[in-house]
This record gives sequence, structure tokens and C-alpha cells, in this order.
Amino acid sequence: MSNQNSQVKLINRPVGLPKLSDWDISSAEIPTIEDGQVLIKVLYLSIDPAMRGWMNEGKSYIAPVGIGEVMRAGGIGVVIESKDDAFEVGDHANGMLGVQEYVAIKVSELVKVDANLAPLPLYLSTLGMPGITGYFGLLDTGQPKEGETVVVSGAAGAVGSVVGQIAKIKGCHVVGIAGGEDKCKYLVDELGFDSAIDYKSEDLSKALRTHCPKGIDVFFDNVGGDTLDAVLAQIRFKARIVICGAISQYNNTTAIKGPSNYLSLLVNRARMEGIVVFDNAANYGAAAQQMGAWIAEGKLKSREHIEVGLENFPEVLLKLFRGENFGKLILKVA
Amino acid sequence: MSNQNSQVKLINRPVGLPKLSDWDISSAEIPTIEDGQVLIKVLYLSIDPAMRGWMNEGKSYIAPVGIGEVMRAGGIGVVIESKDDAFEVGDHANGMLGVQEYVAIKVSELVKVDANLAPLPLYLSTLGMPGITGYFGLLDTGQPKEGETVVVSGAAGAVGSVVGQIAKIKGCHVVGIAGGEDKCKYLVDELGFDSAIDYKSEDLSKALRTHCPKGIDVFFDNVGGDTLDAVLAQIRFKARIVICGAISQYNNTTAIKGPSNYLSLLVNRARMEGIVVFDNAANYGAAAQQMGAWIAEGKLKSREHIEVGLENFPEVLLKLFRGENFGKLILKVA
Repeated sequence: MSNQNSQVKLINRPVGLPKLSDWDISSAEIPTIEDGQVLIKVLYLSIDPAMRGWMNEGKSYIAPVGIGEVMRAGGIGVVIESKDDAFEVGDHANGMLGVQEYVAIKVSELVKVDANLAPLPLYLSTLGMPGITGYFGLLDTGQPKEGETVVVSGAAGAVGSVVGQIAKIKGCHVVGIAGGEDKCKYLVDELGFDSAIDYKSEDLSKALRTHCPKGIDVFFDNVGGDTLDAVLAQIRFKARIVICGAISQYNNTTAIKGPSNYLSLLVNRARMEGIVVFDNAANYGAAAQQMGAWIAEGKLKSREHIEVGLENFPEVLLKLFRGENFGKLILKVA
Repeated sequence: MSNQNSQVKLINRPVGLPKLSDWDISSAEIPTIEDGQVLIKVLYLSIDPAMRGWMNEGKSYIAPVGIGEVMRAGGIGVVIESKDDAFEVGDHANGMLGVQEYVAIKVSELVKVDANLAPLPLYLSTLGMPGITGYFGLLDTGQPKEGETVVVSGAAGAVGSVVGQIAKIKGCHVVGIAGGEDKCKYLVDELGFDSAIDYKSEDLSKALRTHCPKGIDVFFDNVGGDTLDAVLAQIRFKARIVICGAISQYNNTTAIKGPSNYLSLLVNRARMEGIVVFDNAANYGAAAQQMGAWIAEGKLKSREHIEVGLENFPEVLLKLFRGENFGKLILKVA
């Protein structure tokens, strides 16, 4: 192997959509490892909407990526050198590996994954953070009951597709909101959603009235903005709104658009609650096991959109914000 | 008694602040009563922010007041004629009496009150809807724990003052937001709040940082708008935001300002939930009993702002939206 470690570093705090000039792609030496660490060769990186938040200054649920630092990213890699008994060379691991080819990392920050049980990219989608986010966000916070109407935005995305399918497993009437005919067809034909709304070509409020004639009991929101407002206007008594993200607002250069219809929470005695997957860390295992079983039974399907090449990271990230990915967006590094 | 019944009717749906021309004040005959009804002479009417919502067309938690109808209002009256065994002439009752001098009403829509136990206006404030709203909204939805920081907006109002005092009884650090030095002094000196912020003369965000150094665990909001946003920026992990009202937004002629900082719910895994007092109707009795005990112990104080004269209703309602009342606003009719 060469002695070079390509890395993508954040060198400016973006205003609006990240620009190519906000990144520096350069080479460093491959790091050496200490006791308790392993050297990981990065194979796949997860490209997530949350990355945009990590690039901003200010208090959030996690510290921002520092200027000049390697961009944070979850990923799957293979151990190529180990100074800890817990990992052997050849083991695969999931962790915050960063947008780079190699990383020296403490084994306590890694979770071992089995390449024989599932294709590696699946550990970044349904069996990874997005899937587990959807699992706990829907079941613990959304608390869907059989027969209720569940709406999910960003429904063809990594989190949304899991949410909708689990809601179907729980006996709910499920409506997805996604952009484009292909995605909508996929939601209904492949994933078994009851219906899907193409926000790019349909009047969202009208379509919601058609597909949710009894109103909306649970809304799992990945999008925010006008989508959240349209749904708030049609929630039912004691509805639960799960705030998982707001991809429509992350690249705003003006203030975030707050939900004008938030007083619908009062009218309907409804609840809006934010979630972050890290809070459920203690229960990841149980969730992954349940999701694995559903996958094996064919009840939970996933789709990955895999791009290739570390150097393409800046452009691939933009695909996410332009809604050009179809399935969980993953960057294949090596 | 004369045979005339003065009434205030809504004749236009207001845009923005209600205008005097949105009302018609005229006389009708005093109604006759049927079996199961009583004739009530109205003594006191409750003037509430919620009235503004009742004047708008559209779905809400209660039907709008119809054009040409007597304006809805809660009130206290005395029975002057009865065709039901449950009420005798001279009994006092609380109910939705309307902005008028006399009303024929079914006894099932009335609650008897005892003029010997408490002054009648108290049944429209701490012992009435506002007090009970604060009681359940804070305790059931806000779920304050000892040592937590509770912030309440509209703190010198009928609901807010009850919320703050109950939070003190529960051992919380309590900060009130109100308009004007007099109200702020009252909150701290008379009601025992830990501190009060005058939103009219202070920088709200800065003052919140000073008075809530650990951040905000519970926010009970009667105001909305910029106040809600300022608080959202300073909530703690797992905070609870109780949406009781949004008086700053009720007279908007443009869209309601949604909370731009709502993603703080996500960052802090916090919850925002709407309340309407009617849902707790089954437990009014228990709440009133507890509040009565606190009043007797001197732990729960109230202040009423009493204006006089049915014909002044349109102008008195505006006082509320201009923040000119100091204490529960009540209109003495007779």
C-alpha cells in the first residue's frame, strides 16, 4: 500500500449550499496506531443530511466539525492493523471514520459488523444509523397504533423508507411524501406504502386530504418547511409529530422557516417532539436484531445509491440536497 | 326589571385587531325559559385572549361565533327564574353566558358556585378556566420537577400567574415574562417568582441567559412569536414546551410567525405540546379543590382587573390585546 491517506477537510463554513471551495482534498501520511487502537481502511461512507448541520458553528447535539478538520462521516471499514485484542486484521467495523481513506481509531468507538450476514452498505442504511433512527423515532416517539394514519416525508430516503415500512408492519395506513414519480412508484410498488405523494408535481395539501381522509395521527418529518405546515393543517386530535430533520431548511441563507401552523398543536392537543438517534445507543442491538429479522422475512427492504471515489465527496453531498439520490446515499471509497 | 336584554353581537369577521364596527350592541326581549332551563342575570364576564380565535372562521377546538350571534363569553350570573330542581332563584352559576345581560340556559351547561366561599370574580380567574388551564397545563403537560427552571410568558395574566405560583409550590426556579415594570415587580414581590423579565424594556434573550443560567426545562407559552423563539434557543435537554396560546399572533393580518428555532426541539430532544382546558373537564373539581386549598394557605394569590359596563365590551377586549390589563380581565355587567 502507498503511504498516502487522502482526506477531505472542511476549510470554510458554508453559507447556503456547500460550495466546492469549502473543501480541501489533500494527502496526509497514513497514521500510526497506539495501544487500544486499530488502523482502518475506509470502504464505505454514509452521506447524510445531518452532515450539513455539523458544518455550522454553534450549539447542537454534537460539536461542529472544526475548520481545517477532516469532515465527519459515519462509515464501514476493514481493520488492516490492530493493537487491541477485540479486533483482528480483516474484521469489519462501523464508526465515525471521517471522509478519508485511513483512520487510526480507538476500538471503543467502533462496532464490529459481520460481512457474511449482510452486504456491508446495509450497515450504513437499514441496519445502521438511518434505520435505527427510523425505528426508535417512529415506535418510541411516534407511538403509532394499528389503524392510524402515518405520514412520512423524505419517504424514499434511508430513514423515511424504514419508517413507512415499520408503520405498515404495525398495521397503519401509510402515506409517503417524496420527490418524483420513480420514487413514489417505488414506495407503493416495492415497499408497500398505501400511497405516495410527489411533492414536485402535486398539490401537497390537496393530496393529503385525498390520501388521509381521516386526518393524520403520526407525522415523521425529515423535511420541514412548507411540508411540515401542510401536514400540521391536517393532523388529528392527539397527533404526534416526530421531528427528525428539516432538509428543506439546512441550506437556507435566511432564517429557518418555522411552522406557521404550529397552533394546530393547540387546536388538536398534539405533540411535536425532536429525536436524535444517539439517545437510544443502549438499545441499538435490540433494534438491529428486530430489523434483521424483518429483512429476513422480506418485510423490510432497502435500497442503496452508491457513488464512487473519495474525491467526489463534495459533489455527492450536493446530490443529497438536490434530492438526486434514490435510496440511501453511500460513497464507496475503496 | 325592564323587559330589555342588551346584547353584544359579532357582525363582521375582524381582520387584525377587532374594530368597534365589528360589533352591534342592541336590545332584545328577555328570553323565556323552558323546562330544564334557568334564566340568568349576568353579573361578570371573563375577557380572554381565546375570544379572538372564536371570532375567526375555520376549524378550531370549538365552533366559531356566527355572524349576527351574541359573542361567546364565560361568565358568572345569578338565577332569577328556574324551571329545574337543580337551581333555585338566587343561586350563582358559572357557564358560557355570552356578552349579554340575560340568558336562558340549560342547567346541564352550568356549574353552581358558592358566593360565600370566594368572591364571585375569583370563579372566572384562579378558580375558573384560566386557573384550571394553568393547573393541568403545567402539571400534566409541563411535568415540572423540583429544582427545574420554569419560564412562563404572559406571566402576570390569569393563566400565567397561576402557572408560576404552582411551579414555585412544586419547588422550581420560576422566571416570568411580562410587559412593564409594575407587572414584573408584582410577580416577584407579591407572587414569589424568582425573577421577572420586562419584555418591553429588556433584551429578552440576554435576560433569559441571566435568569436561567442552567437553561430552561419547562416553558409555558401564552404569547408565541419572538418570545417563543427566544426561549427555544435556550431550552435544556428533554425540555417541555406547553403551548397554551399565542396572544402576540392572534391579530396578525399576515400569516402566524412560526417558531424559527423549532429545530431546537431536535437538538435537545424536547417536546412541544398544545393544551385546551376542556379535555380535563372530568377533573375540574379536584383541581379547583386543590387550588382553593392553596388560596386558603396563602400560596396562591390572584388579582382581577375589573371593568364595568356591557356596552364597553368592544373597548375592554382591545385592552387585553394591548396588554393594558393587570390581572385577570373581567367585565362587570350589572
